[in-house]
This record gives sequence, C-alpha cells and structure tokens, in this order.
Amino acid sequence: MVETAQGKTAARRADAQRSIAAILQAAVEALSRNPEASVSEIAKIAGVGRVTVYGHFPNRGDLVDAALAHAIEQGEVSLDDVDLTGDPREALTRLIDSSWQLVDRSRSLLQAAQSVLPPSRIRALHASPAERVQKLVERGRDEGVFRTDLPTEWLVGVMHSVMHHAADEINADRLAADQAAGYIAATVLAAFSPISSPSAEPRS
Amino acid sequence: MVETAQGKTAARRADAQRSIAAILQAAVEALSRNPEASVSEIAKIAGVGRVTVYGHFPNRGDLVDAALAHAIEQGEVSLDDVDLTGDPREALTRLIDSSWQLVDRSRSLLQAAQSVLPPSRIRALHASPAERVQKLVERGRDEGVFRTDLPTEWLVGVMHSVMHHAADEINADRLAADQAAGYIAATVLAAFSPISSPSAEPRS
Repeated sequence: MVETAQGKTAARRADAQRSIAAILQAAVEALSRNPEASVSEIAKIAGVGRVTVYGHFPNRGDLVDAALAHAIEQGEVSLDDVDLTGDPREALTRLIDSSWQLVDRSRSLLQAAQSVLPPSRIRALHASPAERVQKLVERGRDEGVFRTDLPTEWLVGVMHSVMHHAADEINADRLAADQAAGYIAATVLAAFSPISSPSAEPRS
Repeated sequence: MVETAQGKTAARRADAQRSIAAILQAAVEALSRNPEASVSEIAKIAGVGRVTVYGHFPNRGDLVDAALAHAIEQGEVSLDDVDLTGDPREALTRLIDSSWQLVDRSRSLLQAAQSVLPPSRIRALHASPAERVQKLVERGRDEGVFRTDLPTEWLVGVMHSVMHHAADEINADRLAADQAAGYIAATVLAAFSPISSPSAEPRS
C-alpha cells in the first residue's frame, strides 16, 4: 500500500475516533461504578494515557458531559424497542418502565453529572428521549387522555424531574430501586390526567 | 467595667456571631444577584476581609450551603403566616403560592447551590419547609382528598422536585415567572389526588 498524505490523515483520524470511543466507553463504565471516578482511572480503563484523554476532553466536566451523552445515545437503542402504540397511558407506562431501567443503571453517572453540570445542561442532553415523550404526550392530548391545560413541554419536564427525583431518592437510601418505576408511573400518569376537580385548574 | 477572661471570651463570641450574621446576609444578597458571586465579593458586601470569611467557612461550598440554609430559615417566617386550615387542597395551593414566592426570589441562590451541593444535600436543607408540607399531606390523606397509595415522603419529594424544576425552567428561559405557581399547583394537586383510573395505580 502506498502511503499518501491523505491516507496518513485518514488513519490518524480513525485512530482518534477509536481512542475517543474507548475513552467514552471507559468513562461510562467507571462513572457508573463511582461518581467520583478520576480522569486517571478512566484513562487506565480505556488503555490510554491521561494526556490523550485531556487532548480530547480539556477537563473532567467535558468528559462527564460526553459520557452522559454517550450513555443516553446508547439507551436510545432500547427505547426504540418500546411499543408506543395503543392507549397512550399504557404506552407511557411502558416508556417509563424502559426509561427508568436506563436511568437506574446510570444513577451513579447521573450523580457525577449533577456535580459538574447545571440542571439545564442535563436536561438538554436528554433532548432525544424527551422528544419521544413529547410525541406520546401530544398523541395522548389529541386523544383526550392527557391534560391540555398545561404546555406539553412542561409535562415532559415534570416526567424528567420525577424520574431524576427517584434516582436521587435511591442514591440517598430513601427509596428501594424496585419500587421506583411503579411510583414514577403512578405519579406521572396522575399529573398528566385531564383535570377532574376545579381546584386542580391552573390559574392564569 | 472590669475585664475578666470570661468577659473577653463572651465579647469575642458576640463579635464572631455578628460577623457570621453579616457574612450570611451578604452571601444571600450576592448569590441572589449572581450565582457565581465570589467569596471576595461576599466579604466586601459584609464589610469583612476574605480571611475572616474563610475563618468561618473553610471553602465557598460551605458558604453557599450556609447561605441557602439561612435563606430557607428566613423564609420560614413568611410560611408561618400561611393559613393551612380548611380544605387541604386549598391550603396546599396557598402553601405552594407562598413557597414559590420564596423559591422564585432565591432562584439564583438555588442555582449557586446546585453547582456545589448534591441534590440530597439541597433536599436535606429543606427539611423544615418539607415537614410543613408533610403534615398537610398527612391531613389531606386522613380526610380522603390526597392519595394514600404512595408514601407521604415520596409525595413531598415530588412537590420539591416540581418546584425546583420550575425554577430551572425559568433560569433556562423556558418558563415565565408569573406562570410558575399556577403550573406547579395544577401539577402537584393532580399528582396528589386519589387515583380514579386503574392505569394510574402503582404496581408492587
């Protein structure tokens, strides 16, 4: 094979991509075990030097941000399998179940993210799973089973908050992991239901 | 006046208390304007040196923690005035209104706290207002207007999360400040209502 300048550049780029992929996988692994895992520990698991990690991620915050983004992206694959057809309430319950399994598995990584990223950034990283919830909420509103007196975006955010609240509660030993999905679904479905009592109406 | 050893110690203690009070007041003031206010800025407002601040609060995190605790304690005074008698749903709406005014005024301070304290610590600092909500929720459960299929502690935590979610949304320019109290009340009252549809029941 003749080595051309373009060939070398392409090879270097492929090397860098492999290295980034290994670092992200290592970061998700290490931070899922210990929210305080250091850049050195992550570099060791990835089989690269700390300098290489810092070459791609200037500080630990950038690495945690990218690791959470990577975990959420990987989670999308299992969310793709959730049947979102049929009764929107039942579809939402299935989506909560699957989403919760992902959040529960990433509780430690989420804790790491909460200590270096503002809530607005954590919410922004969830744009793709949030869009999935949003579409389902919109369908439920159209079909009259979810409330229309509050904006869809607010309802989606409420689900995100309740889910992350459950993760915080488990981390603080105030909630058992196997109860969380049921509590979340019971809370979110009630919060999304069309109002029946006048006192639950939002004032303008 | 005769200067005794005890007298000097008492005077020093009184000095230190005045200094701590001034620092906390300055911290609440500065962090309510800018979540990134530095220890130097806070010292300047308090009229003391940085060394004095560090003498009482070894690092900025300790100071932010104490400032949030101080703001919550001050807020208790206005929560004391809320009429919690009568229909628990109406009492909860009044409590949400008053609590939200406090949270809204402290949004910037809350942002400062979120960047240095874990969610479990922020929740722990709210123990006293949370107890107030808890008592009201318990009364509402006894009277049959709030659901009993989820633990009281979980419901209180949901209200805390939804309230702080609203603060995050305003900080991210996704929610207008004057809509928040209505959205929070509409969401929390629905989430607390006794279940009417079977799909909203938590599974065990």
